[in-house]
Amino acid sequence: MSQRLEGNVVVTGSNRGIGLELVKQLAEGTGEETHIYAGCRAPEGTGAEALRDIQTQYPGKITIIKLDMSDEDSISAAVQEVNKQIEAGGLNLLINNAAINQPGPLAPLSATGKKDMMDVYETNVVGPFLIAKMFLPLLKRAAEMSSPAKDMEEENMSCRRSAIINISTVISSIHKCPETFAQVQMYPYRVSKAALNMLTRCQSLDFKRHNILVTAIHPGWVRTEMGGSEAVLSTKDSVLGMLTIMSSLGNKDSGMLVDWQGNTIPW
Amino acid sequence: MSQRLEGNVVVTGSNRGIGLELVKQLAEGTGEETHIYAGCRAPEGTGAEALRDIQTQYPGKITIIKLDMSDEDSISAAVQEVNKQIEAGGLNLLINNAAINQPGPLAPLSATGKKDMMDVYETNVVGPFLIAKMFLPLLKRAAEMSSPAKDMEEENMSCRRSAIINISTVISSIHKCPETFAQVQMYPYRVSKAALNMLTRCQSLDFKRHNILVTAIHPGWVRTEMGGSEAVLSTKDSVLGMLTIMSSLGNKDSGMLVDWQGNTIPW
Repeated sequence: MSQRLEGNVVVTGSNRGIGLELVKQLAEGTGEETHIYAGCRAPEGTGAEALRDIQTQYPGKITIIKLDMSDEDSISAAVQEVNKQIEAGGLNLLINNAAINQPGPLAPLSATGKKDMMDVYETNVVGPFLIAKMFLPLLKRAAEMSSPAKDMEEENMSCRRSAIINISTVISSIHKCPETFAQVQMYPYRVSKAALNMLTRCQSLDFKRHNILVTAIHPGWVRTEMGGSEAVLSTKDSVLGMLTIMSSLGNKDSGMLVDWQGNTIPW
Repeated sequence: MSQRLEGNVVVTGSNRGIGLELVKQLAEGTGEETHIYAGCRAPEGTGAEALRDIQTQYPGKITIIKLDMSDEDSISAAVQEVNKQIEAGGLNLLINNAAINQPGPLAPLSATGKKDMMDVYETNVVGPFLIAKMFLPLLKRAAEMSSPAKDMEEENMSCRRSAIINISTVISSIHKCPETFAQVQMYPYRVSKAALNMLTRCQSLDFKRHNILVTAIHPGWVRTEMGGSEAVLSTKDSVLGMLTIMSSLGNKDSGMLVDWQGNTIPW
């Protein structure tokens, strides 16, 4: 039943890795009715060159927004900018992709301190919490503007209508922790992503009355700066899978953690 | 197979509620070989009067320690003080009970901000992370000092030997979130406690090689300042249940979330 994504889409952490590929494939695969707001910390910097190239390639389709998920004022300013450009429209899809992993995959407990724990939580959990809260009026408006087809009344939530996708990870699974802990500890990251899953679950229950879908997605183990060069999946295939899954998510998937192939991951 | 708890025990947040009752029942129910280090933010304040009364009632058995779980220097100073008093001994049981719930059980999302999210995480997750890390040498020493009986070699972990108990809550269960979310949202608290469960799981895997047991316990819905007056369980019964369960925890319980009656709670 999958239809392609459309409408107004926000992607955070969009200057590299999975975020960049999300912007690219969304720009490629959507029609004129779609606009992408690509958030990144330094839109003018050399780190956003690839993003600016994609913007040039799809004129009028991508707005690059300065957005630092660790900074409440930055989030607020970005939301206002999107708000202004969307005018009377709504936000159909918010993809919280920005995340950090301190002090890194190979750091042991002894090298992990309070600052790592707090910083990673701030960007990976509190940022998504705040941006969802600030975008709530626009997400509600998008849901109100599109009523589902008559024969789809029971399936009233989708990523085309109004949705928040929190990019999580299989590493977030408390249940599956024993499978990977010996390879990578990453206390701050694991703990933050379990917290993000709970945030996802809370938001799904809270926003259901507004017909806003909220799902956490594991992108697979992807060859990015964060995933490392030994990872099994290309960024392209991961994002292809995730966008296919996103376009088919419905009511039963809200409040769940699924992978890029649509399999549910236990908490 | 339950034997009573003994040895050196640290309880955080011990001036009221569950923490105070833990100190009381531990003081009552243990022998001379047991010493309790009762951490609280203001040992001299009026809020610690009941704790000082118990200390007087059991001369030489309780040391009250100044401990603010949101302050790394305070945690470090408290650990040094315990270290000094324990001398060549070890720490057998660390009970992370201190926790906060901001902005309170009835606050809606709109009244919940970044400071609430960060403060609650700092005290409920980062505090337990840091204190466990700092007490690790003492916990390891306790585990090394007591080898299990020959016929118990496979069951080599216990709260009598060396253990961390993180006081969690059923509210921490992502799976069970839909059962309670309509009554109380508590985003910062729920998210922090799911994070604490992941911390518990990571610690259990990390510290298994040192024979240190790590388990999260849900105390039940208890009539305390945090639980409210409508809660179904008295502090006394909750703590009685938890101490009984703690004294029977073994290898299979490490890295799990159980309630005060010993039932496993899904993540």
